[in-house]
Order: sequence, then structure tokens, then C-alpha cells
Amino acid sequence: MSGLFRMQSRDPGSSARTGILTTAHGQVATPAFVAVATQATVKALEPQTLVELGIQIVIANSYHLHLRPGENVIAGLGGLHGFSGWNGPVMTDSGGFQVFSLGAGKEHGVGKIASIFPGRGSCIPAEGHQGRKSLVRLDEEGVRFRSIVDGSEHFFSPEVVITLQQKLGADIALVLDECTSPLHSYGYTKRAMERTHRWARRGLEAFREGAKGEMSPNPGQVLYGIVQGGAYKDLRQESAQRIEEIGFEGFAIGGSLGRSKEEMHLVLDWTIPYLSEEKPRPLLGIGEIDDIFAAVGRGVDTFDCAACTRIARNGTVFVKDAPRHRVNLRNARFKSDPNPIASHCDCFACRHHSRAYLRHLCRSGELSFYRLASMHNLRFIVRLMSDIRAAITAGKFNELEQEWQTARRGGSA
Amino acid sequence: MSGLFRMQSRDPGSSARTGILTTAHGQVATPAFVAVATQATVKALEPQTLVELGIQIVIANSYHLHLRPGENVIAGLGGLHGFSGWNGPVMTDSGGFQVFSLGAGKEHGVGKIASIFPGRGSCIPAEGHQGRKSLVRLDEEGVRFRSIVDGSEHFFSPEVVITLQQKLGADIALVLDECTSPLHSYGYTKRAMERTHRWARRGLEAFREGAKGEMSPNPGQVLYGIVQGGAYKDLRQESAQRIEEIGFEGFAIGGSLGRSKEEMHLVLDWTIPYLSEEKPRPLLGIGEIDDIFAAVGRGVDTFDCAACTRIARNGTVFVKDAPRHRVNLRNARFKSDPNPIASHCDCFACRHHSRAYLRHLCRSGELSFYRLASMHNLRFIVRLMSDIRAAITAGKFNELEQEWQTARRGGSA
Repeated sequence: MSGLFRMQSRDPGSSARTGILTTAHGQVATPAFVAVATQATVKALEPQTLVELGIQIVIANSYHLHLRPGENVIAGLGGLHGFSGWNGPVMTDSGGFQVFSLGAGKEHGVGKIASIFPGRGSCIPAEGHQGRKSLVRLDEEGVRFRSIVDGSEHFFSPEVVITLQQKLGADIALVLDECTSPLHSYGYTKRAMERTHRWARRGLEAFREGAKGEMSPNPGQVLYGIVQGGAYKDLRQESAQRIEEIGFEGFAIGGSLGRSKEEMHLVLDWTIPYLSEEKPRPLLGIGEIDDIFAAVGRGVDTFDCAACTRIARNGTVFVKDAPRHRVNLRNARFKSDPNPIASHCDCFACRHHSRAYLRHLCRSGELSFYRLASMHNLRFIVRLMSDIRAAITAGKFNELEQEWQTARRGGSA
Repeated sequence: MSGLFRMQSRDPGSSARTGILTTAHGQVATPAFVAVATQATVKALEPQTLVELGIQIVIANSYHLHLRPGENVIAGLGGLHGFSGWNGPVMTDSGGFQVFSLGAGKEHGVGKIASIFPGRGSCIPAEGHQGRKSLVRLDEEGVRFRSIVDGSEHFFSPEVVITLQQKLGADIALVLDECTSPLHSYGYTKRAMERTHRWARRGLEAFREGAKGEMSPNPGQVLYGIVQGGAYKDLRQESAQRIEEIGFEGFAIGGSLGRSKEEMHLVLDWTIPYLSEEKPRPLLGIGEIDDIFAAVGRGVDTFDCAACTRIARNGTVFVKDAPRHRVNLRNARFKSDPNPIASHCDCFACRHHSRAYLRHLCRSGELSFYRLASMHNLRFIVRLMSDIRAAITAGKFNELEQEWQTARRGGSA
């Protein structure tokens, strides 16, 4: 059965666990990194390259694909798998976060700012933030917004985003939720959370109805719920319980994860104990290496984050022994450096090219640089996740985390 | 011995010929397309992909690589081969054309406009065009110009560009020449041509001196001369004879090739009979499919043209049965088209992706599109050149040209 999650091992010193997530298009060994394929492509990389990199699963963006080329075009070509040529597991988000970040998010100047919205979640604007020049309107029924492509009007409801995602045919779909910000009051966050729960029930019902109609090119598609509740302990606990009760195939942790990494850790500590051990737990929009360690240690199973490839395109590549595990190849010290980005890295860029050549491509704005750097960063994260799984299996997760913390602090690669 | 060219077969109905060009980094079956790798990379493609596409030889740009990262950095990493990871044959141009097109060319509004400069050649500005805000100054000694990267002053002489190219270590280097425009008088074109001949002699002398000093990472490097003379019959004939006498390993046809395709054909008809049959004849900066047929039929052996990949990045891809053998994937008629770009094409994009998906990537500005479309166009040209070689060997070159002319006229793919 697709959507099935089997826990494989548990770390004795933390809440970290390994597992196998089975989807209609293959299995995912968890903890896993989910590569971001907003427009049904991971930027600069073809599906075959993702396979070579060891990417197990990707997440595409319902909002962008709805606007262009439209879910009907994609459904007509066999859904996201047939359309893109990626035959492995695929998730789609519900599109709500883009309605927020590209609509009211811009108006309110909050957008994707990490300190306010460290999680990408599936955020939509709060009521208190409406009305200024926003093109986005939210009520109990759903969200109205204008296309960033052509200005046309669109409406997303819990039901509409299900139909949309059924046509896209990803293996894992997500319900529509409302993301609150850390600036919101307890009262507003609670009301938004309660609406998110009502939307979750409507979404699941629509999903079951749609599945009967065989509208999706992917009959094995499953639906995940999303836990909200901001950075309030009792709300996160209540949301976890309510979403759990509704009965999804997985439970994503979305929305505001607090104003700092420490608050994010607390949110995870409050939420995860209330989620079923038998279901997968994606953390939406988080992907820095220290965050991955922190979240895996608290029981999170998957991560998706566009930053991994976005920073690559800007010249920032992962190495173990450096602050934040990053160096920027534009740095003059790499001008004549014959070494690969990272010693012991088996990625294509490290096997074939020097830092000096990559720096030249980066500074020249060459398209091949975006590809090579993206390959390195994704391969780096894929290997990290593999090392994390091995450490959990061996009962040595905390040792691995310690090792990386030391590398991060002492490093100057 | 590198630089050796062996004619293999000759078409009975034209001056077309096949041959094998042997370089220090492998052989090239001619007629051949030379992929443009301005910054030591073919845009959006790695060296390994070029091998898969069947690309035999690339041309890098001395001017750009001199400015960034500098020939000493490249020499320190093993020359262009070691630096870029491309282990096959490489040419470098002398850089003079960029001095022209990025300096005075911009000032005078002539640049790379096909009707004025259909050939990329190795053009440098004419005296009559100096003085306005140009940062480029030309005299008997050489050319002074400012960097487009940082405004620093640089000087290219026939000797300097040889040293530069010896450090880059391409298999085939080109002498510095002066490109004239079709707007120039007979008198000016003649004086410029005579200077080009003097520069050619200085270049060859410098090349022999430099080779003694073992300055190049590529001891097998050879030097080609460039024929000038504008669109004047007696000048082209004289230039071909003079450059031939000086004694290079190959004879490039550069500079202004007239104001129309017909004039270009005349220039080739005037020039080629005066060039040795035992030496290769590159035509610089020409690469449209009808031009390739016209030039091969007149005895040209290699072509380099950036347009092939530049138009790809803009959505224009080659198909046989279409006007100019091109369609633009942005066209709405491809919105739901499940077919590959070109039937019977074996390129990666055609094997894996539909026109609908590629159109979506193109319209979304996705980096993967640039790569996929570039692969298609290069593979298309590589296969065309292979078909041309087979047709020449079979004595059926004119039939093949006729077939493509018919496809071009009747096509509406």
C-alpha cells in the first residue's frame, strides 16, 4: 500500500528514527532530504541527474504549476511524473504558502524572512494583515488571489487545492492550511489553527470524493495533514492531536516555527510526542544542516528546502569544515586552487573540476556553474542524510551531530 | 604530427571534401562543427555532455579568458584542457574580434550585425572608425583597449596574442588580424589587409620563438593564419596567396564576408582556390544551416558559431522541416504537445521530454531548459555534419543539400 511508513530503527540517545516510506512511485529511506522542484524541475538539473545524485523524492509547487502551465495540461500528459520525466516519489504542497508569500507576504514585508517565517509551511496571510494593497483575501471559504503571471483571479479552497493536486498526481498531497506569524496574538493564532483544522477535514473529504472519481493520473496518491499552532505550546499540542484524529497518511509540521532556532526546537518538542509513531513527519521548508540535525533528533523524517540549490547558484557550496558548513567560491583565495570543492566528495563537480575553474564559471555567470554547484550541494546533503541514517541505525546519532558541530565551529576550509 | 590534415574524399559535384584533422588532443572528422566555449565552457553543458553529443572540437575565447581569470591562472592548471576538463581538440581565437565588437564595435553600432559582419572573424576596428568614445586604439604595433570587466588597460599585438594563446595551450591558435567592414573603401581594405599580412608574419615568428621557450602547456599546439580582403575579389585572392606563402598549419577565412549570403559565396569562391588542398580551412563565425551547406560545397572544413546555442536558450530549436529549420517552443501550439522536438532525433531532450514540458520550462525561465535546448541544437548540428560527411563520401552532397532546401521551403513543423 502506498503512503505506508515503516519505522526501521530508533536511536537510543534521541528521538531520531530511520524508516521506509513507500509511495506509488517507489520507496524513500528516511530521514530524507526532499529536493525542491517548484516548476516540476529541480533548477538546472534533469531527472536523470537527480537519480545519479541519490535524490529519493522531490516536491513540486501546486501554486506555480496551477498558474503555468495549468493542472489540466499536466494531467493530460500523465501527471507530474509523465510531464517531468521524474519517475520517483513526488510531493506537492497545497499552494497556500505561495498565495501568502507572493501576495500579502510581499505587502507586509514578512515574506520568507527566516526570523519571522523560518518554516516555509503552507502559510497564508493572517486576517490582521489584509486590506492594504494585498491581492489576497482569505475567509472561511478559502483564499482569493491574483496570478503573478498574468493578473488573472484565482480561488483556492481546501477542496480546490485537492482537485488541483489530484490532477497533478503527486504521490503525496498536502491539505490547505493557514500559516500564522510569530507576531500574531495567542487569540488569533488559536482561531487560525481552528480554521486550519476545519479546512483539514474538508480537504480529506474532498480527497476521498475525488479519488472515487478517478480524476488523478496517480491512483496511489495519499494526503498528509499539517499541524499548526504557532509557537504556543498548548496550541501545537492541540493541533497535533486534532490533525492526528482526522486521520491522514502523514503529518507535516508547518507554519511559524518561532523566532529563533531555539523556539523551533521547542515547537518540535511540543508537537512530535502527539503524532503517531506509525506515520511520517515532514518538516516543511527547513534545510540548514544544523536544523536537520536538530529536527532529526526530535523525530522528523523529511525536509525540503530550496536554499540548498539557491545558495549554490550564488556561489555558496557546502563543505564540512567551515562555519555553517559553507564557503563561497567567489572568494579570491580560490583563484588558482586546483582542489575540488570538498575533499572526499564524490559528486560530479568534485570528481571533474577544481575550485579555480568553478570560481571562474561562477564569476563569469556561466550556466554550467549553476548546475555543477547545485549538484555538489544536493549530493552533499544526500550523503549527509545517508550518514545520519547509518548513525541512527548504529545508535550513534548524537556522536555524528557532535562531530558536525565541531567541524562547524573549528572549520576554515 | 599534430595539425596534420588528411583529405579523405572529395565530392564529384562540388568542392566539398571530407578529411581528418589530427591535433595533439585527438582527431576531428571534417567537415565539422566547432562548439563555442567562450569562457572555457560551452554554455550550460559540461565537457562530458559534449562527448555524449558527439562534439569533436571547441573554440575558446582568448580575449575573455585573458581578462578573467587570466592566462596565467589557466596555464597553472594545465592550460585549457586541464582547466576545463575538456580533453578533446580546442581552438582559441586571437581575441581581436572581441576587442573590436566590445570596444569600437559598440561605438560604431556595427557590432555583430550579420548584414555588416556576417563572419565573426577576428575583427578589430578600422582606423576610420576610431576616436569617438572608443576605448580601443589600433596602430601598426597592435591594439590598446580597456577591459569590460574592470576598465583596466590592455594591449594586444601579434606577439602578445601568441604568448597569450601559448599559455592557454589550445591545440590550434589563430594569428591576430584586422577585420574590415563592407562599408570600407577598397583602399582602406587593402591597407588593412597588408597590415594583417605583416601581423601574420610577426605572429608566426613569435609563435616559433615561444614554442622554443616551452611556455605552453601544449607542445603540440599549431598556428593558423587568417585570410582577409573584404568583399574584393583581387584582395581576397592576394590575401589567400600571401597567407598561404607565410606557411601556417591551416587557413581560416575571416573578416567581412560581404553584405549578403550571395556575397559570402563569392568571397569563398574567390578565396578557396588559392588555398592549399593539404591544409584545413575553417570559416570563422558562420553556422546557419544553409550557410554550412554553401560553405562545405565550396571546400570549407570547419565552422564555429555561437548562435546555435544562443538561439536555443531563447527557445528556438532546430527541426528539419521548417523555415530556416527552426521552431520556437514558446509558441502556444506546443502547449499540450506530447511529441519530442524533432522526430527521429536521438538527443537527450528528445528521448526524454515532450514539447509541452520543454515549453513550460522555457516560459518559466528554468535553467534546465537552457541545457536541454542547447543539447538538442548541438546534437542536431552534429548529426547534420555527420550526414554531410557521409553524403560527400558517397558522392551525393548536392542531393543532400537539395533535400534540406526542400525541407526548409516546404516545412511547417
